[in-house]
Amino acid sequence: MTAITKLPKGEVTRQRILDAGEVVFAELGFAAARLEDVANAVGIRRASIVYYFKSKQELYDAVESGLFSALQQESRERLAKGGSACEQMQLLFDSWLDFMVARPTAARIIQRNSADITPRSSNPVEFSEATVREMENVLAKGRDSGEFTAIEPTLFLSFTGGAIINYVCLSQLFGSERIYDPAEPERLEMFRAMLHKTWRALLLPT
Amino acid sequence: MTAITKLPKGEVTRQRILDAGEVVFAELGFAAARLEDVANAVGIRRASIVYYFKSKQELYDAVESGLFSALQQESRERLAKGGSACEQMQLLFDSWLDFMVARPTAARIIQRNSADITPRSSNPVEFSEATVREMENVLAKGRDSGEFTAIEPTLFLSFTGGAIINYVCLSQLFGSERIYDPAEPERLEMFRAMLHKTWRALLLPT
Repeated sequence: MTAITKLPKGEVTRQRILDAGEVVFAELGFAAARLEDVANAVGIRRASIVYYFKSKQELYDAVESGLFSALQQESRERLAKGGSACEQMQLLFDSWLDFMVARPTAARIIQRNSADITPRSSNPVEFSEATVREMENVLAKGRDSGEFTAIEPTLFLSFTGGAIINYVCLSQLFGSERIYDPAEPERLEMFRAMLHKTWRALLLPT
Repeated sequence: MTAITKLPKGEVTRQRILDAGEVVFAELGFAAARLEDVANAVGIRRASIVYYFKSKQELYDAVESGLFSALQQESRERLAKGGSACEQMQLLFDSWLDFMVARPTAARIIQRNSADITPRSSNPVEFSEATVREMENVLAKGRDSGEFTAIEPTLFLSFTGGAIINYVCLSQLFGSERIYDPAEPERLEMFRAMLHKTWRALLLPT
């Protein structure tokens, strides 16, 4: 997920553990995942992981922190291109959608966190706070400029951010007749059009 | 969750195991939940559970089957009151929303299934198929009558059904500043209005 060329050997191993950890946590969830599973995926011993990450919780935190940092960087770069709140909202959703489609393990970890408070029980938004805040800022900007009607951000996120996560995570889960590939261009653009229609219906004054 | 008066003793115990199982699976997830946890919640020994449900998988199946049966019964009763596809769509969403708000453990189990294929790996829609089919039928009815534009049902469900599940499951997960109670009447009606606005924006011809 991160380019691993030209890094010191320890950094290369650390990154391989993070990448494998993301896959394992996405597939099995925090409770069922074991550091042994991650070690096997990397091809090292469990003891070697503990040199980099003291516990399963510490590895999980590093994985979640990493994926939200990457998402936030992607969003910041895109948002810089938009002036009005409407333009920024569109850019923000497109950055979230493209990120999750390209990195379905991240979507699956976020979906798991939505059902399971365990791995983040002390502070559920420890790493996602900046992502929520970014959305709140665009909403506030649009309310101030008169572009948007007032809306409860958490409810708005259930329809929009939640739909993106579901689009990526549910592709295999509606039964064999309804399987789809979230990255298939025609399907992706159909979903994107629905996402744009939904946020506009919820935010633009009628 | 089910009235347990006037049932034979074995049925009462079976129902108490199912109710406790729903709470435990919702809280811990399939992988982390143990039959011992369910036995402790009921106040019986693990061996007594095995008399009713041979394995954790069998108990999970019975819990999931029961919650989808209850949801489908609620929906069928409500849908009988509506004539047009528009009326039926509104009634269907209201039945889903009211059911999930009244039974958040069901919402949490569905959210977990959305991230985790494990407990339903052989057939993800073994118990939810009739619920998906009910939505597809109302969509087809509205398309035939000209009330609705054509739409991909699974994508439509990501925005609408998914938002209902998120509304119930995310109430504690946006951090201490943003906690809400999904059953609080004013908040619930605000969400319901957004749900109606969203399905109309996605389905009604412009």
